[in-house]
Amino acid sequence: MLGGTEKVTGLMKAPQIDNYLGFMEISGTDMLNAFKRHVEHMGIEIKHEKVQNILNMGDYFGINAGTNIYEAKTIILATGHGKAKYMHGEKEYLGKGVGYCATCDGPLYKNKPVALISENEEGEEEANYLSEICSEVYYLPMYQGNYKLNDKVKLIKEKAEAIEGNEMKANLLRTTNNELKVDAVFIVRNVIPIGQLIEGLEIEEGSIKIDKNMAASMTGVFACGDCTGKPYQIAKAVGDGSTAALSAVKYLDLQNMK
Amino acid sequence: MLGGTEKVTGLMKAPQIDNYLGFMEISGTDMLNAFKRHVEHMGIEIKHEKVQNILNMGDYFGINAGTNIYEAKTIILATGHGKAKYMHGEKEYLGKGVGYCATCDGPLYKNKPVALISENEEGEEEANYLSEICSEVYYLPMYQGNYKLNDKVKLIKEKAEAIEGNEMKANLLRTTNNELKVDAVFIVRNVIPIGQLIEGLEIEEGSIKIDKNMAASMTGVFACGDCTGKPYQIAKAVGDGSTAALSAVKYLDLQNMK
Repeated sequence: MLGGTEKVTGLMKAPQIDNYLGFMEISGTDMLNAFKRHVEHMGIEIKHEKVQNILNMGDYFGINAGTNIYEAKTIILATGHGKAKYMHGEKEYLGKGVGYCATCDGPLYKNKPVALISENEEGEEEANYLSEICSEVYYLPMYQGNYKLNDKVKLIKEKAEAIEGNEMKANLLRTTNNELKVDAVFIVRNVIPIGQLIEGLEIEEGSIKIDKNMAASMTGVFACGDCTGKPYQIAKAVGDGSTAALSAVKYLDLQNMK
Repeated sequence: MLGGTEKVTGLMKAPQIDNYLGFMEISGTDMLNAFKRHVEHMGIEIKHEKVQNILNMGDYFGINAGTNIYEAKTIILATGHGKAKYMHGEKEYLGKGVGYCATCDGPLYKNKPVALISENEEGEEEANYLSEICSEVYYLPMYQGNYKLNDKVKLIKEKAEAIEGNEMKANLLRTTNNELKVDAVFIVRNVIPIGQLIEGLEIEEGSIKIDKNMAASMTGVFACGDCTGKPYQIAKAVGDGSTAALSAVKYLDLQNMK
């Protein structure tokens, strides 16, 4: 099980949850802890590594999780509800100065100025990492927090408005009141846009299109939870997760019989 | 919330359940009790009345639950997984000597011989009730138990094979070794066949056909849980139940706005 920290889930912030059958008047944090205890008890390892990209290699998937690469025969996507809209210029300069993983791509910008826009605290660590490599690091948080940043990181409490550049690559991040000259813009989102995570999945009304067995449009890929659409409910996510797991096991069984 | 006793659910008999997120190494009985506590805590009344039939009255539904009739603007079916096959002759003589509710139809057979075939203990009470009205009551249990029956009820531990009769009505129950001359045959099943519960619902592979919002093919009717098909899992039933409830509320809101 690969995922970022649970800090990015809305569940942790819920003061009280009453509509997951079996638990009543429970806080989101307590529920999350009960879920984690259960997962640990079942011997399932959670790796706090954020998956940046999944490649369909035909008979297996290559999973790029920062510094590690994993291989898997089947994938269950449970990435949550991504509200993210692409920034102006983001798609245009993706791979040409725009990236989602500072740890992976940071070294490409040694002694260059870079900016990091982050929706959550995970970005702070990445900004500190970049500050050891890059000449200049601008940190633009999209959340309230204590911002534990190195002295070398410049905190810019402004809204990032557009990524601009020339025909070859991005070279500027336009903010509310500034123009930051940078060679790279990293964006840390709570939820990576699905299209960026894995290419070629059919999307319906902004969510991963699934059939009633939770199979996505790509063979071997299943999905569950908020990334498959409304209603955004714990009970639905858990139920669909159960179905997705059974479907994935069935898929593996069929593969093994071939 | 209308339903028979929980004795008929498989959940109660499960020695250990590990795949409903949040609970681990829990018995079916303990899980059922946790669910019941939650339901009570939320102020939802459970009426242990088995629904025999639902009639679509256009702008509302009439729910026949034995001695009581209820009205509702929307219905959520959560009847569980019905394995029942119709008995030979059952459909043919339905309403002509074959019935599913002894309490409702028993009085029609005053001083007549009747048989009651039951998949669970609920039938015992019904047989005892019939014994106060009818001349002869044969009880054919399809389960192992202590059979708490009146002296007037004759226990027949044989398999019911066919209901036979003339063109007008049923008059005979054929069992493995016997021919019982009766004026009525009552059948108490764990799960009433959907087609008998509510007429005109679209069925797909033996289950109620639903869309992703848990809406069945009839306006105002929603369904969730094992009656909507595989996988037969608690987590899926709970998740789909949550979606069905939200859909039903949305439906009511739209109705009220008209």
